[in-house]
Amino acid sequence: MIADLARCVAEAYEVALPHRGKGKVADYIPALATVDPNRFGFALALPDGTVHTAGDVDIPFSIQSVSKVFTLALALRRLGSSLWTSVGREPSGSAFNSIVQLESENGIPRNPLINAGAIATTDRLIDGRGDEATVAEILDFLRARAGDDSIAIDAEVAASESETGARNRSLGYFMKGFGNLHHPVEEALGVYFRQCAIAMSCRQLARAGLFLAMEGRDPITGEQLIKPHRARRINAIMMLCGHYDNSGEFAFRVGLPGKSGVGGGILCIAPGQGSIAVWSPGLTEAGTSLVGAVALEHFAYAAGWSVFD
Amino acid sequence: MIADLARCVAEAYEVALPHRGKGKVADYIPALATVDPNRFGFALALPDGTVHTAGDVDIPFSIQSVSKVFTLALALRRLGSSLWTSVGREPSGSAFNSIVQLESENGIPRNPLINAGAIATTDRLIDGRGDEATVAEILDFLRARAGDDSIAIDAEVAASESETGARNRSLGYFMKGFGNLHHPVEEALGVYFRQCAIAMSCRQLARAGLFLAMEGRDPITGEQLIKPHRARRINAIMMLCGHYDNSGEFAFRVGLPGKSGVGGGILCIAPGQGSIAVWSPGLTEAGTSLVGAVALEHFAYAAGWSVFD
Amino acid sequence: MIADLARCVAEAYEVALPHRGKGKVADYIPALATVDPNRFGFALALPDGTVHTAGDVDIPFSIQSVSKVFTLALALRRLGSSLWTSVGREPSGSAFNSIVQLESENGIPRNPLINAGAIATTDRLIDGRGDEATVAEILDFLRARAGDDSIAIDAEVAASESETGARNRSLGYFMKGFGNLHHPVEEALGVYFRQCAIAMSCRQLARAGLFLAMEGRDPITGEQLIKPHRARRINAIMMLCGHYDNSGEFAFRVGLPGKSGVGGGILCIAPGQGSIAVWSPGLTEAGTSLVGAVALEHFAYAAGWSVFD
Amino acid sequence: MIADLARCVAEAYEVALPHRGKGKVADYIPALATVDPNRFGFALALPDGTVHTAGDVDIPFSIQSVSKVFTLALALRRLGSSLWTSVGREPSGSAFNSIVQLESENGIPRNPLINAGAIATTDRLIDGRGDEATVAEILDFLRARAGDDSIAIDAEVAASESETGARNRSLGYFMKGFGNLHHPVEEALGVYFRQCAIAMSCRQLARAGLFLAMEGRDPITGEQLIKPHRARRINAIMMLCGHYDNSGEFAFRVGLPGKSGVGGGILCIAPGQGSIAVWSPGLTEAGTSLVGAVALEHFAYAAGWSVFD
Repeated sequence: MIADLARCVAEAYEVALPHRGKGKVADYIPALATVDPNRFGFALALPDGTVHTAGDVDIPFSIQSVSKVFTLALALRRLGSSLWTSVGREPSGSAFNSIVQLESENGIPRNPLINAGAIATTDRLIDGRGDEATVAEILDFLRARAGDDSIAIDAEVAASESETGARNRSLGYFMKGFGNLHHPVEEALGVYFRQCAIAMSCRQLARAGLFLAMEGRDPITGEQLIKPHRARRINAIMMLCGHYDNSGEFAFRVGLPGKSGVGGGILCIAPGQGSIAVWSPGLTEAGTSLVGAVALEHFAYAAGWSVFD
Repeated sequence: MIADLARCVAEAYEVALPHRGKGKVADYIPALATVDPNRFGFALALPDGTVHTAGDVDIPFSIQSVSKVFTLALALRRLGSSLWTSVGREPSGSAFNSIVQLESENGIPRNPLINAGAIATTDRLIDGRGDEATVAEILDFLRARAGDDSIAIDAEVAASESETGARNRSLGYFMKGFGNLHHPVEEALGVYFRQCAIAMSCRQLARAGLFLAMEGRDPITGEQLIKPHRARRINAIMMLCGHYDNSGEFAFRVGLPGKSGVGGGILCIAPGQGSIAVWSPGLTEAGTSLVGAVALEHFAYAAGWSVFD
Repeated sequence: MIADLARCVAEAYEVALPHRGKGKVADYIPALATVDPNRFGFALALPDGTVHTAGDVDIPFSIQSVSKVFTLALALRRLGSSLWTSVGREPSGSAFNSIVQLESENGIPRNPLINAGAIATTDRLIDGRGDEATVAEILDFLRARAGDDSIAIDAEVAASESETGARNRSLGYFMKGFGNLHHPVEEALGVYFRQCAIAMSCRQLARAGLFLAMEGRDPITGEQLIKPHRARRINAIMMLCGHYDNSGEFAFRVGLPGKSGVGGGILCIAPGQGSIAVWSPGLTEAGTSLVGAVALEHFAYAAGWSVFD
Repeated sequence: MIADLARCVAEAYEVALPHRGKGKVADYIPALATVDPNRFGFALALPDGTVHTAGDVDIPFSIQSVSKVFTLALALRRLGSSLWTSVGREPSGSAFNSIVQLESENGIPRNPLINAGAIATTDRLIDGRGDEATVAEILDFLRARAGDDSIAIDAEVAASESETGARNRSLGYFMKGFGNLHHPVEEALGVYFRQCAIAMSCRQLARAGLFLAMEGRDPITGEQLIKPHRARRINAIMMLCGHYDNSGEFAFRVGLPGKSGVGGGILCIAPGQGSIAVWSPGLTEAGTSLVGAVALEHFAYAAGWSVFD
């Protein structure tokens, strides 16, 4: 079976390779625009510690919105169900940065994977500790998961995110106006912009997501990081909301919970099986890595891992 | 394993039984309002023909919106991908009968499981044949799946649906105004109201859904009813959109593709495993059977079938 | 002063004449599409019975939405303030046929001059009498105002309106679903489509609007048709809502309460002074007669009648 | 006639007096909440310099949103028609602080009298000069109009506005995200919060609005402050948009262009006749001075100034 999965990874990589360079690299900040569009990595982490890889799996990239999954896990661990007073758990049916729903629903974002919801989640994660301590917790968590203390924030990306972050500030102040942020907007955004600017490789990211595939337990360190039903909750949210208004298409094509980022990374969880990270910068119109989605679709099919078949 | 599943069914029934009578029976038409709120049935159909049951599994009830799953399957079989010119495949983030999204998206409903999308799907299924032939196809399909020619439309319910169907007519005419219905509105609605008024028992419904668990193949008759990837598509849509703006909660709690109806029925598909139908008339605020959801949650947990663990 | 107004009419006609043929003739029904785009008439009716005219003032045209003003007057006369339980009195900020606002405001349209509001108004005007009696009242009222019993409904236009009326049916059924129509949708629409298909000349229309300029009293017949404050109400609604989402521009340019129709007619009320009807079929993007608006703007300026100067 | 107007003012004051204390004083900032709810002033300024008064006409109050009219005039004077690239001129159909319309219309607010539109207008008025120079221009303009150099900003109110200004910050950053603010958000808001905190008396405010009644010319100083058609534009916008989603009711009741503020002030323009300022802190649900609106309604009726009769 291990041999088979290695072959599935290799095949998925080969199938997707001809699509490299297609799609549009995110260019709203300079640091993302200059990434080589031909980069492509695929890493599958298994609970026994095996990692099957293909391509550029050791080059760090900006994880961007993939970070929302980890801050959600940390916020649930810290706050438990009380998190759900600040953010919902349903698909929004809207774009990643829409504000319309917030107005009719009293400043409570629909789910933690749209921007407003991620900002609200990060705000709760701060929990009075200040931004530095919160950023440190996020970084420490990812370093511990990936077993690599070199994981860091790309300061240039973080600064650019903040400079161009007018829409996210608007979301933040809108929620603040409804009393749905517990800390100053700039404090919550300060953490949010930095979490988005964390740079990780496919190998690290796949490894870091493994606890979500294993009912909240890191199979490498043996730690129960979050309760099993919280891992289930996160996976369900990823399946239904992980790709904004393109979540249905991803669910059909790949059939696994996943979260994409505009840096070109996608984290995919196969519950009970393993964790997959792909990276290729060219994006579809929906903001998902074009090559990455092709590779994941083929892999899920080849491995028989789609939950819908 | 078969013995285990029988026990899981029995357990799920027992766990949910104390909740009977809770929730609110749909009362927008008289025929639904008079149903005994203490009815409760649970049926699990397996690919080998086994059906594990508990409670009122042989009493027909109004399947209502559960019918949308079957007309979607029939429309995909008949029209293939061209169906997607009339209806989308993404969560709407709105209530079952919302019209707001239709205005900004040119009369194309978000998915086939909200009312507007189901009407558009049924309209396409007619395909120029007229309403009688279309209703006949739907009934024949369900009778063949359930192996029971007595399955029928409750004429009183169908008449009531039509009489109280102003909102659905509005949705129909709105789409018609955008050129997104191929037949007269009353023709499409005539089929739609009757499909919603089909009466089936839990045993029949569980059996009828089995092909969706088996990649489009009816394991009892051996017929390949729809292509495997179309079954996957339907399951993905059910997971993301099967319970309107409560789909996220159902996905978390049960972890299986499902579709609820205001008659109190829920059809749940466990891909590769089996098909489950529950029925109990009391509804949550979100319009899903309260007792049914409790039973499904327990069953999925006990059987280990949630796709998110 | 009477001589001056005659000159103002002549000047306004001359100024607007070079614009004839510009704009787009409504073509959603054949009967409107075949109208000669070069038609242009301008009629000013004064309280003393004088009518100053220029151009095609005796050719009947389809008054379309201008009819909404008269059914509003009749409904207020018949029902008094109870009309406002069915329809609001504020600008909608939306297009003439938008349904979005209806969903969030329980099926109550914003004002009587958008389609939904006009249908609700007409529905109330029926008041249990049936469609024929209601249509007869509308026609009789217009004939009495214009002093011309030959005013009639264009049957071909009325039939076409009904055939292409899907969007209006959707609005009607939507309100019906909220319980905000007192009669069957088709009965209300039957009257509505016919009132829109009434054909009148500029001379007749200007004369018919005179009571709105004179505090509800027809200065020719001496009849007090509606109470003074109801005429004020109608004028205020025309000023704020008479041109859908282009009302602000018309208020600035012309500075008088007015109502446009897609047949190319505009009725304009100068409170205390007189009533103006213009007609030219070419429409702006906002659905208002292009030549008519130019003429009205010049006339209001020349006569010093803008209420904002 | 002058005597008559004096009597009309006195009558309007008497009629409204029994309503003092009704309504709800704005309490979102402490400085507003402590105002005596029984204050009530009425001032009518005429072009010849006469001012008819009744009640508390020399006590300064926070003009709040009434300031939007003056910054609109100044922005039009400075920028001319290019202002309309940043803000529209149509009713919004929404609440004063709604953000929904901004999302679908690319960050361009509907009109300069809703909060977003006023912020955009103030941003344009800055025109690269910095906040201090802009605030100085606004203050100088009002002092010159009122002939009183003591008019000042209430620093406590301005500070409170800024502290509680999350929703306005959200609107500002939202527009910034669409590129529809020319200066930093905090710079535009810094001016906006201070203009709202200007304190003026009824006498001063009535006097300051006189140029809008006189085609842009201050009849006391003889200066042509803005072009005549710009005064007409401002009056039209006030009539259609001056009271948010309650503008239709005000237009019907008073029949004059007006602008209300949550401090309880209302400025009303009678084109060609005069300018009226009323003040009483108790607000209707729509945020308009309850006593002020009653007084204006009676005055407009008694003076025969409603433009709709």
